[in-house]
Amino acid sequence: MSKANTKRKEATSASEVTGNRLKSFIERVERLEEERKVIAEDVRDVYGEAKSSGFDPKIMRKIVSLRKTNLEKRREEQELLELYMSAIGMAE
Amino acid sequence: MSKANTKRKEATSASEVTGNRLKSFIERVERLEEERKVIAEDVRDVYGEAKSSGFDPKIMRKIVSLRKTNLEKRREEQELLELYMSAIGMAE
Repeated sequence: MSKANTKRKEATSASEVTGNRLKSFIERVERLEEERKVIAEDVRDVYGEAKSSGFDPKIMRKIVSLRKTNLEKRREEQELLELYMSAIGMAE
Repeated sequence: MSKANTKRKEATSASEVTGNRLKSFIERVERLEEERKVIAEDVRDVYGEAKSSGFDPKIMRKIVSLRKTNLEKRREEQELLELYMSAIGMAE
């Protein structure tokens, strides 16, 4: 094989490796997106089940959102508390 | 126990059952949302890993989106094809 041919072959397999690498990343993302879709469907199913039991999904979504906000607010306050405590030397 | 008391107690436990039922639906939704969050973080991690390997996440997201569109288009075409085939009696 000529030097030029060897070089071309190396270049091809290098770009193949890169292509395979990229494809594997993209397929990982796609598998995760697929899982996310399944979970979104599960969420819809739970709301549907709740609706069949007489609960209003719209109000439930509101509650889920409020609980999330409360949780985040509590977390933020906890972090701030720890920061203040550490600032005045109360942290261990 | 008086009849009124019995009735009140029954009402309380009925509303407790309802409350527990509702809470269990809401907690199921919250667990699913938590899983969804973990998957979203995993997706970010994959893009981060790809970026460290020299791939541009923005272009990768574009590819993921294009592949999704193509897949959906192919699915739609397949459905339409089956519909047409069935309309002219080509379906088994």
